[in-house]
Amino acid sequence: MSEEPLESRRVYSYLGPAGTFTEAALAQVPEARGQEWRPVRNVGEALADVVEGRSNAAMIAIENSVDGGVTTTQDALATIPGLRIVGEYLVPVNFVLVARPGTRLEDVTVVAAHPVAYGQSLQWLTTNIPGHEHLPAASNVASALGIAEGTSGADAAVAAPGVVAHHEYEVLAEDIGDNSNAVTRFVLVSRVAPPPAPTGADKTSLIVELPEDHPGALLDLLEQFATRGINLSLLASRPIGDELGRYRFVIDADGHIEDERMADALLGLRRFSPKVVFLGSYPRADRVIIRYPQRYSDEVFVEARDWLRGLIAGEPEV
Amino acid sequence: MSEEPLESRRVYSYLGPAGTFTEAALAQVPEARGQEWRPVRNVGEALADVVEGRSNAAMIAIENSVDGGVTTTQDALATIPGLRIVGEYLVPVNFVLVARPGTRLEDVTVVAAHPVAYGQSLQWLTTNIPGHEHLPAASNVASALGIAEGTSGADAAVAAPGVVAHHEYEVLAEDIGDNSNAVTRFVLVSRVAPPPAPTGADKTSLIVELPEDHPGALLDLLEQFATRGINLSLLASRPIGDELGRYRFVIDADGHIEDERMADALLGLRRFSPKVVFLGSYPRADRVIIRYPQRYSDEVFVEARDWLRGLIAGEPEV
Amino acid sequence: MSEEPLESRRVYSYLGPAGTFTEAALAQVPEARGQEWRPVRNVGEALADVVEGRSNAAMIAIENSVDGGVTTTQDALATIPGLRIVGEYLVPVNFVLVARPGTRLEDVTVVAAHPVAYGQSLQWLTTNIPGHEHLPAASNVASALGIAEGTSGADAAVAAPGVVAHHEYEVLAEDIGDNSNAVTRFVLVSRVAPPPAPTGADKTSLIVELPEDHPGALLDLLEQFATRGINLSLLASRPIGDELGRYRFVIDADGHIEDERMADALLGLRRFSPKVVFLGSYPRADRVIIRYPQRYSDEVFVEARDWLRGLIAGEPEV
Amino acid sequence: MSEEPLESRRVYSYLGPAGTFTEAALAQVPEARGQEWRPVRNVGEALADVVEGRSNAAMIAIENSVDGGVTTTQDALATIPGLRIVGEYLVPVNFVLVARPGTRLEDVTVVAAHPVAYGQSLQWLTTNIPGHEHLPAASNVASALGIAEGTSGADAAVAAPGVVAHHEYEVLAEDIGDNSNAVTRFVLVSRVAPPPAPTGADKTSLIVELPEDHPGALLDLLEQFATRGINLSLLASRPIGDELGRYRFVIDADGHIEDERMADALLGLRRFSPKVVFLGSYPRADRVIIRYPQRYSDEVFVEARDWLRGLIAGEPEV
Repeated sequence: MSEEPLESRRVYSYLGPAGTFTEAALAQVPEARGQEWRPVRNVGEALADVVEGRSNAAMIAIENSVDGGVTTTQDALATIPGLRIVGEYLVPVNFVLVARPGTRLEDVTVVAAHPVAYGQSLQWLTTNIPGHEHLPAASNVASALGIAEGTSGADAAVAAPGVVAHHEYEVLAEDIGDNSNAVTRFVLVSRVAPPPAPTGADKTSLIVELPEDHPGALLDLLEQFATRGINLSLLASRPIGDELGRYRFVIDADGHIEDERMADALLGLRRFSPKVVFLGSYPRADRVIIRYPQRYSDEVFVEARDWLRGLIAGEPEV
Repeated sequence: MSEEPLESRRVYSYLGPAGTFTEAALAQVPEARGQEWRPVRNVGEALADVVEGRSNAAMIAIENSVDGGVTTTQDALATIPGLRIVGEYLVPVNFVLVARPGTRLEDVTVVAAHPVAYGQSLQWLTTNIPGHEHLPAASNVASALGIAEGTSGADAAVAAPGVVAHHEYEVLAEDIGDNSNAVTRFVLVSRVAPPPAPTGADKTSLIVELPEDHPGALLDLLEQFATRGINLSLLASRPIGDELGRYRFVIDADGHIEDERMADALLGLRRFSPKVVFLGSYPRADRVIIRYPQRYSDEVFVEARDWLRGLIAGEPEV
Repeated sequence: MSEEPLESRRVYSYLGPAGTFTEAALAQVPEARGQEWRPVRNVGEALADVVEGRSNAAMIAIENSVDGGVTTTQDALATIPGLRIVGEYLVPVNFVLVARPGTRLEDVTVVAAHPVAYGQSLQWLTTNIPGHEHLPAASNVASALGIAEGTSGADAAVAAPGVVAHHEYEVLAEDIGDNSNAVTRFVLVSRVAPPPAPTGADKTSLIVELPEDHPGALLDLLEQFATRGINLSLLASRPIGDELGRYRFVIDADGHIEDERMADALLGLRRFSPKVVFLGSYPRADRVIIRYPQRYSDEVFVEARDWLRGLIAGEPEV
Repeated sequence: MSEEPLESRRVYSYLGPAGTFTEAALAQVPEARGQEWRPVRNVGEALADVVEGRSNAAMIAIENSVDGGVTTTQDALATIPGLRIVGEYLVPVNFVLVARPGTRLEDVTVVAAHPVAYGQSLQWLTTNIPGHEHLPAASNVASALGIAEGTSGADAAVAAPGVVAHHEYEVLAEDIGDNSNAVTRFVLVSRVAPPPAPTGADKTSLIVELPEDHPGALLDLLEQFATRGINLSLLASRPIGDELGRYRFVIDADGHIEDERMADALLGLRRFSPKVVFLGSYPRADRVIIRYPQRYSDEVFVEARDWLRGLIAGEPEV
């Protein structure tokens, strides 16, 4: 990821401050241990650090199992050139309700919460604090910080569990998220570089625009994958932004760009689409080996090329 | 939409308070004039009003040309039964920067803004107030209200232009949105009822789940439309929420359920999908007449059914 | 098949004379026993008998497992209106080599054979009578008759095994066909009538023209079947005859016109194609029950129609 | 086509004798002028000449605009390895009715004709010689020869117009074919060699087997062409011969194996199909330049490969 001398420290940007889920994702990166972790305030800042060379890589949230794609991340990756995803990390998402020491649940009327966290805790809050008012916060740590520092108008905060390591709080409730299996997917992003070597359990991320607005264009896009036996684990549409009804597609496909079937699908996409952004091929967080029919294996592709060469050369078939 | 006596007033819920873009959308509904407008705090509340009979209909934002689908709305419509979209309305989205009378732009350091509005004004703010700090607000009116009422820690607020009708502000800048063509799409939602009559310029909204996770399932879904000459103006994926990688698809298709080709596509979808939520067929906001190849016209469908009946009856072909 | 009084005999046309494979096919039809069998000289005559009312039905060869579709039959069915296939019959195809009594194999130099039979026996003839000359014959019985009656210039005849029942021959060899599993498929054709009732083991025969000559038209045709889970057991192309490169397609599809999925596919075809000839739905000769995924069953179609009706009526979903 | 010294003559096999339509096709080959023309009795013999080195090339009929594919030719090309089509030629097909000098039309009762020619003249014969009897002949020249030499039991012969150059006949009628635009397509076949250079007006001939008998296999085959913008001018099915319902497909596709889009389609076919026989890429008889969308041009393919290489190498995109 970095061409700097080994003795120099690597820098990793992440959505801070300490205690966020993003920090928990970065803690999963072995190469980041003992290096410099640089907290930033938003995804744009994290990616700018990478593009402009202040960081070697940035950890950013890209999807949540309950809330869906992180649209600011998707839009940033679609429009900022020169980036590559090099790793994927999963963090279970749980929330605590914290307040100043001594506070009781029945004292709470105003709740600070990042809007996404608020949405994910709404059932619990509606049931347990029926008449509450919501005060939006900038992050799952900022919500709690305002409480700790006495600068917030809220009585309690929905926050990431990590906040209790940094200040003293009354924990009014734990695990208040409406879906106890909620998980957020993070990606580690570096400057353009050769992709990490294939592991058999890889994912390729792309952003693709359609050639024109006709009934079959998206079908044609998807067939590029289906006809090579490639499964998609994510397909999301994002407005291009110039007018209603024009979208780009955010795609995660099973496999690595060095897999023959993926390389062939990418060639097909490139020929078909006015714009394909290759975001990277990288090991899946869950390390699950990709299964595919034998007819899409590398050998089959190599054999077919040899056959074609023989035909053009006029060699007798064997 | 309502079975109540004519002398009773109809009630319309909308995201309040007065001055929001949602109110501007509701102002476009002729039948709503002179009726009761009921401001609510979020989409969930608006839809609950309809389901539980407190309102006849609710106006809710469903998509923004810059920011994409309003995911809370999409998720609410996917999971709350008994609702129908009966109309669509477009509101151009522009923002003003307001402050207390007498304030100058160079005095501003802290800016209150709803997170979506903040994102859409970020270029302007970065250029014109480089070192500013962002204070999240609950709506495009609440941001300004805090200024007017002196309860906000902010110096200025990014707000909907409508706010200036309700309080006195210093307007520091107008039209500060990064995309001057930005528009938000709203839908009017009632309880289940027969769809409004076809107009030739209609849209059908659906939420569809895929039968299983195999490379071709989404292709099969899209072919239900493509093989009947139906264009999709929206295709968005939303996590079902039970695990990463499982999605439902939010679809806007050109045409009306009483168009033969759309009815046939819906039958195909229903047979194919484990779950199809029909959200409604309703006139498009832009009133653009749908064009389609002659081979998908109603007459062609009717003629084919007559032909089939004749074959089964053993009648000689003409 | 016939509207005549029960006391009148039914008439069946078939490619004669007695002893042909076609006669063997007709012998498989229970209703034909004891009725009038009318030998004709070619398929055109047989179908004319039906169209003009001289026969109630005609037995004609439509496909051979080695030689493929009987193109004259396919072309006749494509262009003569008012016909329906009502049954299918398989006859194993074997050939004998016959000569006048007393002849030995080593005496044979000239071999009479119908061209198709000659082609199917060529390996045997080349091996066993290396220097032979071929004299074309009009049928697999005519070849032998010329020998029996002394009017042929041939020394031996390739013939249907049935010929030995009608004249005295020296049988020089049996089972000389190159493929011992060869079988010919025959169909019984009547005037237009309601199709025989579904049995679960049915076949539907069609002749379809494509709407225009573009890369995807045939794909669109085939998708009408594939998207309803219908397998094709035959797909053959025949020139329409007006210019090179224009074809009609002869199709046998698994299922009956009264099966919901087949009816739906026929509707799709009719809407898509400038010309669909429905040749009939009838029980398969092999009586093998058609298997198809549950999602294409009649109940699924009926349920979807009920659902659609409820949506249009504005009924709450259950 | 031949690696022999220039001073040696080239040998061309064709269906003889002199006067056949095949001879007329061979007369269109500039390189064949002044070389040795070797008449043979059937397609098998012609191809054996090539395979075994007795001839440099063979001219064989492959399709007729009225009668369809020449199935014996298609089956021979599917099963005999080591052959390549190197050219295509069209011959208008017309028939004359000839008899011994002095014969009048009203004297004719028995008509000699090759079965295909008989089928193509049937309307004329039925109208003008209503009660005639058909005597099959081995070729469109043999039918007439028997008349000339007095060895035939027929009174007249349906024959190729070329026969009048070789013997004296009474021409009873000309142009008696039922379709005056009928044309037969011939191909010149050599041993395996590099294909003739692309001309922009080329055709590629293939024989392809399907991987397994499921509803979508043929769709998958056709999509290999459709997704590369390649039009098919011929698609015919031929029984593989082992059991009813198993077919191979005979395909003529617009373009040359050295066109990028065709090469890519061939790779796709090879990976997909258990057996692809490449019969050759060669100039079309009609010299019509192939049109295709710009997105399938060679440059687009080359550019996509460069892009892919850059991604794998980790080069910044331009």
